[in-house]
Amino acid sequence: MGEARRGVRCAVFDDPVSSTDFATVTALTETGTGTFDASVHPHWTIAGKPNGGYLLAMLGRAATAISPHQHVIAASAHYLHSPEPGPVRIVAEVLRAGRSASQLHARLLQDGRPCVDALLTVTNLDPAAKPYWDAGLPAASAAPLDSCVRLPGVSPAGFPVPIMDEVDLRIDPATLGFAGGKPTGRGELRGWLGLAGDEPYDPISLLYAVDAFPPATFDIELSGWVPTLELSVYVRALPAPGPVQVLQRAQLIDAQRVDEACFVWDSTGRLVAQGTQLAGIRLG
Amino acid sequence: MGEARRGVRCAVFDDPVSSTDFATVTALTETGTGTFDASVHPHWTIAGKPNGGYLLAMLGRAATAISPHQHVIAASAHYLHSPEPGPVRIVAEVLRAGRSASQLHARLLQDGRPCVDALLTVTNLDPAAKPYWDAGLPAASAAPLDSCVRLPGVSPAGFPVPIMDEVDLRIDPATLGFAGGKPTGRGELRGWLGLAGDEPYDPISLLYAVDAFPPATFDIELSGWVPTLELSVYVRALPAPGPVQVLQRAQLIDAQRVDEACFVWDSTGRLVAQGTQLAGIRLG
Repeated sequence: MGEARRGVRCAVFDDPVSSTDFATVTALTETGTGTFDASVHPHWTIAGKPNGGYLLAMLGRAATAISPHQHVIAASAHYLHSPEPGPVRIVAEVLRAGRSASQLHARLLQDGRPCVDALLTVTNLDPAAKPYWDAGLPAASAAPLDSCVRLPGVSPAGFPVPIMDEVDLRIDPATLGFAGGKPTGRGELRGWLGLAGDEPYDPISLLYAVDAFPPATFDIELSGWVPTLELSVYVRALPAPGPVQVLQRAQLIDAQRVDEACFVWDSTGRLVAQGTQLAGIRLG
Repeated sequence: MGEARRGVRCAVFDDPVSSTDFATVTALTETGTGTFDASVHPHWTIAGKPNGGYLLAMLGRAATAISPHQHVIAASAHYLHSPEPGPVRIVAEVLRAGRSASQLHARLLQDGRPCVDALLTVTNLDPAAKPYWDAGLPAASAAPLDSCVRLPGVSPAGFPVPIMDEVDLRIDPATLGFAGGKPTGRGELRGWLGLAGDEPYDPISLLYAVDAFPPATFDIELSGWVPTLELSVYVRALPAPGPVQVLQRAQLIDAQRVDEACFVWDSTGRLVAQGTQLAGIRLG
């Protein structure tokens, strides 16, 4: 591990985390029926590009604001154009409002240009529900939080990743080889993710959590920007307070695209969210 | 295996497969800019409900018809209301037409009522592309096609599944325990899927292939209808001719919903499509 860490300026647990908490950086101002103003925070970016899960969380907030139900359980986003940090507009529309669930379409625009389109299914999650069968899930096997390593606000390739100073993202040393130029080749990152000020997770911030980790392809081969083309998230349960455990893994790189699966467990070890994404990558 | 098969009327390879080939049952008639008439075939149903991947394929056909690009590589559908077999209308709209890819929204309606909404990303797949890294995929380990068993047009619970007479869907005997009331508990189905008349697959029919298998939850516990709420599909490569191999697996049942992952390999063993879905299930 000592060798693998050499290339990284490791942040420490007590590094100041910004006061831009998640509720604030995803806050919306309603300007009309289903229309909202918002602002993409300049710190929630990677090499100047806003994190895709963060943008989806804004759409999730807009969708729940106009839905008769409370909790996003499925969200599917296609990314058209990366917005700049700054003002954006969100337009959300109810497609169907049923008894137990509603479906919505939401779009994020900047200067009139569509940036992200998403479909969302919203329902009321039952806090008393318990998992019935979970034998198909991978194990939540990250090392304990205290032995994981915070990532710095600079990527291994040298570009700025200010979002790493906004959250408490820690990587299991067993999957941190990439930071020292020695990826394991398994295409897998494990670790933990806490929000600033220990803000508790909810279904909206879980939409961000499934896209928060670096690309799992870092554990195969370093590359430049890995832009998300599509991201689908399922929220499976209301999360307990505390940091979540994350497993991000790549499955296939083909035709300069990679798919990654993400699993998110709450502090009690319950699987609370899952994601899959297709992203562009300059390998192959 | 003998015992496991007892409860099933096994179709045999030579059972007549309908002449309603895939291109025909997903055919569209353009009625205006981005608007199409189509008809949901009564045989492409499970207990009277059209297969969700089949409906998504219709939306994929509409999207590619108005896109400057040829091949759907990502499609994300939310299911609002199950249409009846019969006439439907499809409305598709280009959200962005870029140089290398376009994004579209498509909707299937019946009697003016929205049934399926989807977002799609369309590009031109390079027939010369080769996989660069595939170590994150499960093995394509179904038994050879000839030793797999065709499913009958009746479900284990007794309801009609006429779509099984329209395609050549065969299950690996190792995962067929459910048919004799003895699921393995792994939540996994493996097998093969051929289209009528050996019609070659393309990105449109692959949208169906990722939702063609019975619910993988049959290998855990039998239940009634498992309606798809959300389905996301990635098409990774142009498929070679011939039947595809399919792995359908459940990951988690919680709050009366299950997520399933699907992997589809072409006849050369290349991963050509993947899907994830969230579905309702009356277990737990």
